[in-house]
Amino acid sequence: MLDDEQAIGDLIATWQSATAANDLPKILSLMAEDVVFLVPGQPPMRGRESFAAGFRKAVQQYHIQSTAEIQEIQITGDWAYCWNRLTVTMTPLQAGSPVRRQGYTLTIFRKQPDGAWVLYRDANLLSAS
Amino acid sequence: MLDDEQAIGDLIATWQSATAANDLPKILSLMAEDVVFLVPGQPPMRGRESFAAGFRKAVQQYHIQSTAEIQEIQITGDWAYCWNRLTVTMTPLQAGSPVRRQGYTLTIFRKQPDGAWVLYRDANLLSAS
Repeated sequence: MLDDEQAIGDLIATWQSATAANDLPKILSLMAEDVVFLVPGQPPMRGRESFAAGFRKAVQQYHIQSTAEIQEIQITGDWAYCWNRLTVTMTPLQAGSPVRRQGYTLTIFRKQPDGAWVLYRDANLLSAS
Repeated sequence: MLDDEQAIGDLIATWQSATAANDLPKILSLMAEDVVFLVPGQPPMRGRESFAAGFRKAVQQYHIQSTAEIQEIQITGDWAYCWNRLTVTMTPLQAGSPVRRQGYTLTIFRKQPDGAWVLYRDANLLSAS
């Protein structure tokens, strides 16, 4: 159980560092093929490729950095959920001031047959701060 | 498993009907004592009493109706998650036009020792529509 909690904490930390490093293949490896992302005011974003398209577009304009403060992790068998307080700073590559967004995420993780945890469902409540 | 899925579907339906009927004790019976609600742009709302305070304030001004379209329910042991497409219509008791908000919710449910499911963690991504 503690190992699983550590594994999910590591996944979240790796997500942040891979985002800052613009390492899309690494980020994609941390989510299920049929992942679903929920964000306010938009239809659900379904599947790894949807995430990849959005990420590629964003990093053409911004350097993205984020930090996650884990509020709770609960694990039951091959499933887990976690909620985080997340801060995302998007710094324009050209001119302009950084944009900072803050808020909470509620995330479902799933353990794969190979033992690796992946992000499976994610609700992102960030708003401008 | 199917019984549990039915029980969670029933909980969601009861939540909607109890909201329309302004039946706060019924709604409170559907959530854990230490429930957490996450919404954009606000600190987490922790505990039944926080929900109750917000609800009492809202129903002084509005008649609230909501409909939930269940997108997915997954159950594992005494835990479940569900995501819904939710529409909430708040009709002023005095004058004014109804306010409609739409969006998705991602919710964690927990089965209590008595076998009843309760809402445990909820991320609400509704925005004005």
